[in-house]
Amino acid sequence: MRYGWLAFLTDYGYHDGFVAACHGVIARIVPDARVIDVTHAVPPQDVRHGAVVLEQTVPYLPASVIVGVVDPGVGSERRGVALQAGESVLVGPDNGLLVWAADALGGASAAVELTAPEYRLGGDAATFHGRDIFAPAAAHVAAGVPLRALGPAVSVEDLVRLPTPRARARAGVVETEAHLVDHFGNVALAARADHLNEAGLAVGDRVDVTVSGGPVHHDVLLGRIFADVAPGEHLVYVDSHGYLSLATNQGDAASSLGVEPGDDVRVSRSHAHG
Amino acid sequence: MRYGWLAFLTDYGYHDGFVAACHGVIARIVPDARVIDVTHAVPPQDVRHGAVVLEQTVPYLPASVIVGVVDPGVGSERRGVALQAGESVLVGPDNGLLVWAADALGGASAAVELTAPEYRLGGDAATFHGRDIFAPAAAHVAAGVPLRALGPAVSVEDLVRLPTPRARARAGVVETEAHLVDHFGNVALAARADHLNEAGLAVGDRVDVTVSGGPVHHDVLLGRIFADVAPGEHLVYVDSHGYLSLATNQGDAASSLGVEPGDDVRVSRSHAHG
Amino acid sequence: MRYGWLAFLTDYGYHDGFVAACHGVIARIVPDARVIDVTHAVPPQDVRHGAVVLEQTVPYLPASVIVGVVDPGVGSERRGVALQAGESVLVGPDNGLLVWAADALGGASAAVELTAPEYRLGGDAATFHGRDIFAPAAAHVAAGVPLRALGPAVSVEDLVRLPTPRARARAGVVETEAHLVDHFGNVALAARADHLNEAGLAVGDRVDVTVSGGPVHHDVLLGRIFADVAPGEHLVYVDSHGYLSLATNQGDAASSLGVEPGDDVRVSRSHAHG
Repeated sequence: MRYGWLAFLTDYGYHDGFVAACHGVIARIVPDARVIDVTHAVPPQDVRHGAVVLEQTVPYLPASVIVGVVDPGVGSERRGVALQAGESVLVGPDNGLLVWAADALGGASAAVELTAPEYRLGGDAATFHGRDIFAPAAAHVAAGVPLRALGPAVSVEDLVRLPTPRARARAGVVETEAHLVDHFGNVALAARADHLNEAGLAVGDRVDVTVSGGPVHHDVLLGRIFADVAPGEHLVYVDSHGYLSLATNQGDAASSLGVEPGDDVRVSRSHAHG
Repeated sequence: MRYGWLAFLTDYGYHDGFVAACHGVIARIVPDARVIDVTHAVPPQDVRHGAVVLEQTVPYLPASVIVGVVDPGVGSERRGVALQAGESVLVGPDNGLLVWAADALGGASAAVELTAPEYRLGGDAATFHGRDIFAPAAAHVAAGVPLRALGPAVSVEDLVRLPTPRARARAGVVETEAHLVDHFGNVALAARADHLNEAGLAVGDRVDVTVSGGPVHHDVLLGRIFADVAPGEHLVYVDSHGYLSLATNQGDAASSLGVEPGDDVRVSRSHAHG
Repeated sequence: MRYGWLAFLTDYGYHDGFVAACHGVIARIVPDARVIDVTHAVPPQDVRHGAVVLEQTVPYLPASVIVGVVDPGVGSERRGVALQAGESVLVGPDNGLLVWAADALGGASAAVELTAPEYRLGGDAATFHGRDIFAPAAAHVAAGVPLRALGPAVSVEDLVRLPTPRARARAGVVETEAHLVDHFGNVALAARADHLNEAGLAVGDRVDVTVSGGPVHHDVLLGRIFADVAPGEHLVYVDSHGYLSLATNQGDAASSLGVEPGDDVRVSRSHAHG
């Protein structure tokens, strides 16, 4: 099988030539394929952020070879892997970056460790595996090289997984954690629409929001769109990826509520108070 | 008609997967088309900034389907529209973002509201219309779907317009406002070369510049290129888009003069003083 | 000869439409060619930074027409040039931006000054030569226009060169300067693996590092990968482009060591002390 599309996510930033060197390596191996850059602005070495962005984005991509590189352990014992997931292939370090995205594509059905020297760029690749190992492997897969040629099979159960983010519901209450803060300051929580249903909460309800045991934000609307509340007001809603989320209409909820990824967040039905 | 090119401008930033999700949606619908990313760094919800950047850029694009999304009212009553302008089509919210660009392409000749469900991504699209409504509509247009299939016609006169920026000239004086501050800190004013002619000012003249009634910057050269003045000195010039502009050679005029978009700027012929 | 690839590096940033206008100009002239964006985040007018990034990246690109624009002297007497180097062509201002990249491709074998009006965009191009001169020239080269048609030959020896960065070795000591600080804060020095060999230093040795005559950082490992030292510890290593480099495992060496490009850096064999 050949692929017409690759996708590419890293923490390389936009100031250097790292991303372009990888694009060049891909262009030389599989010139007809095209690359969708997911983002290269993952905070340096923030594997979780990269994993969430990939997980959210891959369902909207065409069948692709998806390269992810957020790799604090580059050159150490951690493995490089390629995973088959649905019609797509994910390539990168075995540090948890890729597995949530594989889950979003139906789960990894096969995996290999990237060891075959003929699918690496020549030279001693110690600190730039994106250019020297992951981009070449992905490009060769796009050009038709089967996964099994890249190296020995790895059990899908043995792949490194990040800790599952906390999310649970009971009557009137969802207890979870902040999962991802986006460019606008909207805060996706790890809880999803299911948890909301389980808690018996629905659009139009009013909820109290507590962040990491701090002060309670009372009577926040459980709404549908930002404009359901006045500019500057907070809102709880289910975002476009299905996550329960916090926003501020025309503002930055993460800043104004003081939320960072991993913080505990509690959303509970509001009661009269005063 | 089919289009080989799309163009894409948003305020989505580069840290998340929003832009890539839209690229993926486009790639699935019209895989042969290519996308020119205009910018995704429009300041969040700054419709005016996006409108000016689009207006300046579209004259240099090939015939394209141009998607613009800067959309503080996402999900509310504001319409989604597609406009025919010259050989190109503009797609986005009806909030003023697209109309100046349409003007730069000769004016909108037809418009429709985006209501046809078959050209949307499935699901309940409340907060991510870029992915769920605008990108799919644009991709379908690129693939040959006629505008009229996207929804009912809208009168071009009824499209929302941003306020026309202030610019007027009289003998020796141009009174206008700051229109766009670029990456280098150069300040494009809303006045154009025409206003300069009308004021009887020409390259080589010396002018006084006043920002929002603040202190007068005396004897600034009305020049042609940055190197017409010494490094660190201010310059008034007509920029590469035809706007009267303020710059500092090898410096940042917006910071050093304290100018922000919308500020009043007065440029007048210098007289001996002191 | 026609080219299927262009590459593009500027200091235009990502907030405006500058880059997209150039992409549009290229697309109109040579629609089948594809563009690899190297970076557009070169610090404004920092020719050296752009030159180093180009030099590091071009060896990984396919045969390309490479446009570089970091151009504090735009519109002044400085020439616009196109250089043949190996199978690629470099286009941009004659201010030192391109020559190191040409060297990395085997050296410039021919050069011309960009004067032919038929390969410029019409209009009076005073301050945006990327759009009006360099992108069109590059696109025409990609479309098959021979270099000699762009303007008169220039002697390769007459091209402007940036000062050669300082790097010398003697027994146990490398004296050099900081060459490039990357997105992660890793500091590439101008010295290369050769200098290390010349100094008789090798992986596993311990070295002292001094920045601009400041305090000595004692007993730093000369390692191979970041994980050779504990998180937060410094490391000297040969980076993926062959430069001797300073890093902090999972940290930002430039900040923690206080290094900026051009600073003197001395790396010498550690001796017992205390």
